[in-house]
Amino acid sequence: MNAIADVQSSADTRNQPISRVGIRGLRMPLMWHTAGGGQATVAEVAMSVYLPAHQKGTHMSRFVALIESFDKPIGYDTLSLLTHTMLKDLDAHSGEIHIHAPFFRTKSAPVSGIKSLMDYDIELSGEVENGKYCHSLKVVVPATSLCPCSKEISDYGAHNQRSHITVTLHCNSAVEPEEVIDLVEKQASCQLYGLLKRPDEKFVTEYAYDNPKFVEDIVRDVAAALKADSRICQFIVESENFESIHNHSAYAKIVYP
Amino acid sequence: MNAIADVQSSADTRNQPISRVGIRGLRMPLMWHTAGGGQATVAEVAMSVYLPAHQKGTHMSRFVALIESFDKPIGYDTLSLLTHTMLKDLDAHSGEIHIHAPFFRTKSAPVSGIKSLMDYDIELSGEVENGKYCHSLKVVVPATSLCPCSKEISDYGAHNQRSHITVTLHCNSAVEPEEVIDLVEKQASCQLYGLLKRPDEKFVTEYAYDNPKFVEDIVRDVAAALKADSRICQFIVESENFESIHNHSAYAKIVYP
Amino acid sequence: MNAIADVQSSADTRNQPISRVGIRGLRMPLMWHTAGGGQATVAEVAMSVYLPAHQKGTHMSRFVALIESFDKPIGYDTLSLLTHTMLKDLDAHSGEIHIHAPFFRTKSAPVSGIKSLMDYDIELSGEVENGKYCHSLKVVVPATSLCPCSKEISDYGAHNQRSHITVTLHCNSAVEPEEVIDLVEKQASCQLYGLLKRPDEKFVTEYAYDNPKFVEDIVRDVAAALKADSRICQFIVESENFESIHNHSAYAKIVYP
Amino acid sequence: MNAIADVQSSADTRNQPISRVGIRGLRMPLMWHTAGGGQATVAEVAMSVYLPAHQKGTHMSRFVALIESFDKPIGYDTLSLLTHTMLKDLDAHSGEIHIHAPFFRTKSAPVSGIKSLMDYDIELSGEVENGKYCHSLKVVVPATSLCPCSKEISDYGAHNQRSHITVTLHCNSAVEPEEVIDLVEKQASCQLYGLLKRPDEKFVTEYAYDNPKFVEDIVRDVAAALKADSRICQFIVESENFESIHNHSAYAKIVYP
Repeated sequence: MNAIADVQSSADTRNQPISRVGIRGLRMPLMWHTAGGGQATVAEVAMSVYLPAHQKGTHMSRFVALIESFDKPIGYDTLSLLTHTMLKDLDAHSGEIHIHAPFFRTKSAPVSGIKSLMDYDIELSGEVENGKYCHSLKVVVPATSLCPCSKEISDYGAHNQRSHITVTLHCNSAVEPEEVIDLVEKQASCQLYGLLKRPDEKFVTEYAYDNPKFVEDIVRDVAAALKADSRICQFIVESENFESIHNHSAYAKIVYP
Repeated sequence: MNAIADVQSSADTRNQPISRVGIRGLRMPLMWHTAGGGQATVAEVAMSVYLPAHQKGTHMSRFVALIESFDKPIGYDTLSLLTHTMLKDLDAHSGEIHIHAPFFRTKSAPVSGIKSLMDYDIELSGEVENGKYCHSLKVVVPATSLCPCSKEISDYGAHNQRSHITVTLHCNSAVEPEEVIDLVEKQASCQLYGLLKRPDEKFVTEYAYDNPKFVEDIVRDVAAALKADSRICQFIVESENFESIHNHSAYAKIVYP
Repeated sequence: MNAIADVQSSADTRNQPISRVGIRGLRMPLMWHTAGGGQATVAEVAMSVYLPAHQKGTHMSRFVALIESFDKPIGYDTLSLLTHTMLKDLDAHSGEIHIHAPFFRTKSAPVSGIKSLMDYDIELSGEVENGKYCHSLKVVVPATSLCPCSKEISDYGAHNQRSHITVTLHCNSAVEPEEVIDLVEKQASCQLYGLLKRPDEKFVTEYAYDNPKFVEDIVRDVAAALKADSRICQFIVESENFESIHNHSAYAKIVYP
Repeated sequence: MNAIADVQSSADTRNQPISRVGIRGLRMPLMWHTAGGGQATVAEVAMSVYLPAHQKGTHMSRFVALIESFDKPIGYDTLSLLTHTMLKDLDAHSGEIHIHAPFFRTKSAPVSGIKSLMDYDIELSGEVENGKYCHSLKVVVPATSLCPCSKEISDYGAHNQRSHITVTLHCNSAVEPEEVIDLVEKQASCQLYGLLKRPDEKFVTEYAYDNPKFVEDIVRDVAAALKADSRICQFIVESENFESIHNHSAYAKIVYP
C-alpha cells in the first residue's frame, strides 16, 4: 500500500489558495438535537475547508469519515464541535459545514385539538473564518397568506395561497428552530396543519380572512418579532407567496441590519 | 478512420431484446407548431427505439443528428414524420419520441382586457409499436381551486390555492393544446393570468368564490368536457391542489375508458 | 359542531366515478422494515382510493389520520395491512399507497474494508383493484458505467460516469430491497461507495475498466439476473447514464414479460 | 373603477423599509442578445425593488407589465435600460433584475467537425443600489473532469464524470457568455459535445486522460484565466464534480478578490 502515490499531498506552484474545497450532496441519516433528546431525520450535508496555495488537493475521504463517525445529535453545540474537529482533521484554519434536513413538529388542530405532524426545512451551518466561529440557522416555514387587496376590493372571498416564509439568522445565544417556527407562524395569515377536522377548517378559513397580509406585511411583521429578540444579532427574512391567481410568485425580503 | 472498431454493431448472444434504448434529457431550442405558424420554445427531448436481441448496441449519435437537423415546427403531423424517420435511421420497427416544453398564450384580463402571457407545460409524444403509430398530448394547466367545504362551513372566506390540472389524451384527429387549455380553464374555480389590474383581481376573487370545486369536482367536470369531444378516444385527467391550509396536496385522477 | 355541513358526503349526480382520490406529497418520518428491525427515514407518502359516482367527495383527513397513527415499520406485510385498513377507513373497494424514501446500507470498501453508508431511493407500493391486492418495489441504484466503445477505440482511458439503474418489480414472495441492490450492483461496471481510501480507489478504477458496459449491457445483464429469481413475476429495468462526454443521458429499458 | 380601493398605496406605520419586494418565478420567452442579433430562449425572471418604510405595498402588476412590453434582446446594455426603467416605473431608488435562461452554442466535434448544439445555463443580473448600477453574469459550464489520483495510482483507466463549472463575475466592460464558456472549457479535463462520431469519441477520451484535473485544479486554472482578463474585476468560480465512484459531489470554490 505504501507504494500508492499521494497526489493530493504534492506541492502546488500556481500560487492560488482555494476559498473552500470539500464535499456536497452527501445524503445520510442523522439526529436533530431537540429538548426531548433528538429527532431522526435524513440530511443533505456539505463540508468544506480553506486550502492554502502550496497544497495541491484536500483529503476528500476525511470529510465523509468524520461525519459518518459523528454520533451526536446535531445542534448548536455539537455543530461547533463537528466544525472544529473538521478543521483539525483537515489541518485547515477556515471551513464550514451545512446540515440541511426536514424537521417535524407535532401540532394540535386549533379547535378539535387533534394532533398531527408538520414538516419544515432547516439548515444549520457552522463556519470558522480567521479563527472566529459563527453559526447560522435557516428555517423555511410554510404558511397561508391571504391578500388584503383582494379582500378589500371584493364583495366576498379573498385569494389566498401557500407561502414559504424563510428566516436566516445569526444569534449570540442559541435560538432553537421551534422558537423561530412559533414566531413566524404567529405572523402569517394562518399557520398550516397536517390534519384538520371540519370545525378546524372553519377556524383556519375565518382566521386567515381576519388576518390578511401582503408579502410585505409578512416580512415586516416577522422582522419586528425577530428584532424584539435580543439573542438575534442579524437576520434575513423572506416570503415567497405561490399566488393562487397567477402562475408566478410574489416575493419580499428584509435584510437586518 | 476505417480502423476504428464499431463495438455497437457487434453481435449479442444474450438472447434479450431491449424494449427501448436511446437518449433523454437533451435540451434544445425548437418551435411548437401553432395556427399562427410556430412558437419558439426550449424543449427537453427523449428518443428511443426497440433493439433486437442479436444487436449489441444502438447508434446514439443518430438520435441527436436527427433531432438537430429537423427544422419543422413540432405538431401532430411533423412529430409523426420525425418518429418514422427515427425508425428508418435506426433501422427499428418500434420506438417513441417525447417533446416536453413550455407553451405560451396571450390572455386578456377579464375586466380591463390588459394582455399578458400565461405559461403551460406540454408534452407531445409519438410512438410506433407493432407497426402502428399513435400520438398523445399532455397539458398541465395551472389554475385556482376554491374549497366548497371551506366556503360552506365558514361564516366568511374560503381557502383556495394554485392547482395543476393535467390532461393526457389520445385523439383520432388533432386536438390542439389551446383547445385543451380552454376546456380545462372553464372547469377550474378560476383561471390564472400573468397580469391583473385591481378590477380584474376583484373579478377573479369573486369568480372563484362563486365556483367552488373540490379536487374531485375538477376532474369530474374536465372528464365530462373531454368525453363530449368525439375526437378524444382516451384520456387521463388529474388535479393536484397545493392546499393552502396543509403542507401536502389533494389529488384526484380519472382514467377513461 | 353538529351543525357543520358535511359537503363531501352529499350526493353527486354527474354519474362519474373517480379512479383515485386522496393525498400526495405528505412528508413524514417513518421506519423501513429491515431484518435488523427497522431503519429510520423520511418518506413522501401518496394514498388514494376509488370514489363511486354517487359520492361527492372523499374524506381527506382520514388518510393523514391513518398514516400518522400507523406505528409499524413499512415492509411488504405491514404495507398490505395499511392498504387494507385504508380501504376500510375510506369505505372503498380499490385504492393504493406509495411510500417513497431513501434507504441506507453500510458497505465495506473493497480493499481497505473501511465502512461507510450508501443511499438508495426506494418506493414500496400496495394496491387493491377488484378485490385483489398486489405490491411492487422500485429501487434506484446509483452505479458506475464505463463505455466499451470508448475503451475499445481509445489508446488509453475510457469515459465513465454515474448511472441510475432502476428496477421496478412485482413478486409473489417478498424480495427485499437489499437483494435487489446486491443483484444490480453486481451488473454495473462498478458499484459506488461513500468512502474510499487510495487502495480502494485504485481497485474501483481498474474494476470499472475491466467491466465496460453499454447502457444496453446493463439492462440486459440485470434482466437476466432478475429472470433467474423465480419469486419475481414481472419487472421493468431502466438505466440512465449521465454521460461524461455529453450533456444528456443515454437510456435503456427492458419490460418483462 | 375609481371606487376600487388602492390598499397598497396606503400609509404604513411600522417604520420598517423592505430591502426587496417584487416577483419571481415568472417564466417567459425572450431573446438573449448575441453578436448575431439574438437567440430565442425561455427565461425565468425575478424583479424586485426597495420599498420605503412609509409605503404599505408595491405595485406587483407593474413588474409584469414592464418585462412583457420590453421587446429588446437581453444583454448588458438592455438590462441596464430595463433595470432603470423598473426603478422609474416603481418609483424606487434601488432594485434588481435576474434573467435566468438556457443559452445554446453550435460546436464542431473535434475530429469529424460535425456540428451540434450545447446548452448552458446563464443568469444575467442588473442592480441599482445607492444610485450605482452594476451587473453580474453567471454561467454554468458542464464539462468532463478526470481524476489525477485515480489515473496515477491505477494500472489502467481513471474515473471521470460530468462536472458543473460555474463562474459568477462582475466586469467593468462587457464580457460575453461565449467568452466565459470558451475560457472555462479550455480548463476542464475535456469539453462536452451534443454529437460525437467514433473518431471524436476516441479524441475526447484520450484528451481527458491526458488532462487529469482535481476539482481544485479546475477552479485554480479557471481563476488564473479570469484574473488575466482586465475587464473582470470580481469573480467566484465553483466546480461541482458528480463523482462517478461516489454518490455525492466533490466541490471547490475560489472567491476573488
